[in-house]
Amino acid sequence: MNASILNELRNIVGKDYVMSAKEDMIIYASDATMFDHWPDAVVQPASRDEVVGIVKVAAKNNIPLTGRGAGTCLSGGAIPLKGGIVVDMARMDRIRKIDAANKIAIVEPGVITFELASQATKLGLLYPPDPSSWKESTLGGNVAECAGGAVDGEMCGPDWTMLITGSEGTLGLITAITLRLVPAPVTKKTMMAIYERLEDAAKTVSVTMASGIIPTTLELMDNMAIVATEKAVKIGLPVQAGGLLLIEIDGMPSTVEENAKRVSDICKECGALEVKVAQTAAEAESLWVARRGVAKAFGQIAPCKFAEDATVPRSLVPLLVEKSLEMQKKYNIPILIVGHAGDGNMHPTIMFDKRDKDAAARAEQALDEVHLVTLELGGTLSGEHGIGFAKAPYLKAETGPVGYKMGQDVKAVLDPAGIMNPGKMFNYEGALH
Amino acid sequence: MNASILNELRNIVGKDYVMSAKEDMIIYASDATMFDHWPDAVVQPASRDEVVGIVKVAAKNNIPLTGRGAGTCLSGGAIPLKGGIVVDMARMDRIRKIDAANKIAIVEPGVITFELASQATKLGLLYPPDPSSWKESTLGGNVAECAGGAVDGEMCGPDWTMLITGSEGTLGLITAITLRLVPAPVTKKTMMAIYERLEDAAKTVSVTMASGIIPTTLELMDNMAIVATEKAVKIGLPVQAGGLLLIEIDGMPSTVEENAKRVSDICKECGALEVKVAQTAAEAESLWVARRGVAKAFGQIAPCKFAEDATVPRSLVPLLVEKSLEMQKKYNIPILIVGHAGDGNMHPTIMFDKRDKDAAARAEQALDEVHLVTLELGGTLSGEHGIGFAKAPYLKAETGPVGYKMGQDVKAVLDPAGIMNPGKMFNYEGALH
Repeated sequence: MNASILNELRNIVGKDYVMSAKEDMIIYASDATMFDHWPDAVVQPASRDEVVGIVKVAAKNNIPLTGRGAGTCLSGGAIPLKGGIVVDMARMDRIRKIDAANKIAIVEPGVITFELASQATKLGLLYPPDPSSWKESTLGGNVAECAGGAVDGEMCGPDWTMLITGSEGTLGLITAITLRLVPAPVTKKTMMAIYERLEDAAKTVSVTMASGIIPTTLELMDNMAIVATEKAVKIGLPVQAGGLLLIEIDGMPSTVEENAKRVSDICKECGALEVKVAQTAAEAESLWVARRGVAKAFGQIAPCKFAEDATVPRSLVPLLVEKSLEMQKKYNIPILIVGHAGDGNMHPTIMFDKRDKDAAARAEQALDEVHLVTLELGGTLSGEHGIGFAKAPYLKAETGPVGYKMGQDVKAVLDPAGIMNPGKMFNYEGALH
Repeated sequence: MNASILNELRNIVGKDYVMSAKEDMIIYASDATMFDHWPDAVVQPASRDEVVGIVKVAAKNNIPLTGRGAGTCLSGGAIPLKGGIVVDMARMDRIRKIDAANKIAIVEPGVITFELASQATKLGLLYPPDPSSWKESTLGGNVAECAGGAVDGEMCGPDWTMLITGSEGTLGLITAITLRLVPAPVTKKTMMAIYERLEDAAKTVSVTMASGIIPTTLELMDNMAIVATEKAVKIGLPVQAGGLLLIEIDGMPSTVEENAKRVSDICKECGALEVKVAQTAAEAESLWVARRGVAKAFGQIAPCKFAEDATVPRSLVPLLVEKSLEMQKKYNIPILIVGHAGDGNMHPTIMFDKRDKDAAARAEQALDEVHLVTLELGGTLSGEHGIGFAKAPYLKAETGPVGYKMGQDVKAVLDPAGIMNPGKMFNYEGALH
């Protein structure tokens, strides 16, 4: 990037907050996927005005802009595919306001999800979205990728909030977010149901959801996930089990008691060997540590993964699990099956080592099939990780040609220079990886 | 409209479903506002393909298209401001599917809201949105105007669903809707809290919402509304009261009991003279008949009204009530105060007789002030009635110039011919009424 542009950027954010040395770029070249593309510069704004200034410089010089939170994206959202400027939101990390009476929070995009959740808890409120990366990922990234929850729009007319939510930095940069909070539940009960067969755990999901009880959380793990996680966290998970469900139910004490009993009965009717109820808050927390630890434990199985977030109607969770088990055999490749099953948001995770060309090729084939099966089941490619460029080749199959064109046209309106996170989602240009 | 275009339309929908005679147009010229503009033709399609055919004919001939459900719109949404074709969705009235396991319904736009609600109830499910007009209004109109509830988008990427929801027919015509249903509550309790002072009822709203209890419904009525409604429905409403709240709490039995007690205590702490709990389902239902009857009872006060849906943060409901009371005095004009107070969605309703020019002028001034005060309080012009053209002159004050331009630009992309419900929302062209 030429010196005069770098100077313009320094004038906006201060000289300490513009980087362009090769050694500074490396961590901004990748995210939690296994791809990398290097930026030409990284800028760290501290305010909305500075972001506006950066966008003006970029537009004038036709330089791509890619927003970045914590870089935990699983679809390549934070990777600057066409180089240019990465806008690192780390300094915009203030919780501007938590309005307890109206149950809203106003935050800057660089706030860590866990930080807001903790502050809300202190006020007796709950911020429900709960990505596994909550201690690292930022709210700006969560909103841009539509990760693990939704924001709330208050404008009349079309809801522009929802246009930006999930737009993955392709329509603009987020400089502040208003989030809805809910009252913290009075009580909750955390349970673990243990199964010999993964299919029975999956069946429990659809039967529970059809019963009318909506657990706050309903997380599925297969044997591979259980074993890998136990190795990493050592809390006594049942490593012999074919599958398990982590279930949390919240609400008023008597309701929780009643619903927990009904769900426990459903688990047993569907074939659970045992249903363990956490007896203390510490026991419950250790189950969550396990669930959040799954992604980090994956590395024990293979160095590379396609971490998908294929999402299907809840009643079809058993079918997606069945198909995933078939694909494991068909492609002779490990596919971990974990997922936020209560939302139909499954995480079939294809494990391989990219240095093994043959395994990598089979992994690609399995990935293709995961996407096509998901769409056949009436599902959506991404429940929370985003499209980025990792899933971009499949997007048109989901949206249809008219929806796809609409995506391109809307982007052309909001980003006429085509500089916002180019090459992704509706502006994917072919096999870039 | 020339005969060859009418013939093209007849070829698409059948000859019985195209009208253009003056006497057939009159009911399509107006909605529940007091304005009227006449269409040139009315077409009644029976399928998505027929709608597509109509749009093609209209685009080719540059003819405005205005979608219409039951015509209950309170912002002029269904009025064909520039003439052209009204697309009457009355024949597209099938509930295509209620999928109880996944808790979704797929419906055509002409389905009456009450019809879906009834069918859902039979399956132990609930369709939560509950516009007062539920026995007349259609789901297509509800979605287009964002009336009394929200739909659910399942696509990845930007949520186009939310772009169309609330777009009031300016971006396209809705031919099918997928709606989320929720489990029907196991039990509920309906209460009426009676106040000497309206302000105390309003204060109860903000205190209740801050307490963490979220009643399913929290409806506010002032004395004028109580008296007019009692005249119409005769169920023994307290006509001496300065204000009342209708409160409904649902959930599991013990939770409902506990929360009802807490809310009842809050009512009394805020100055309620009495809190009556409905003892039977029939008693509860009669209270809802009262609330839904309010709009129909307005005619007893004056023949014309500006029925606003000014929506403010819940903690500011008392302030909006206070300002509305001040405006009554300032402009010497009746302003009924009713509202879905639990959502901050208030309905200050300015009553007048348009033949009294002086009263009509004062009504316009009060209307101006209602909108400006709402925006000053950080609220939104429309909680559920839509912008249409009735509120269009104020829209830019809410969105700001950038948001307004964005609205125009997005419309230009999705409706390049500019034929979709022209002259409304972001394409308002000045004082048309």
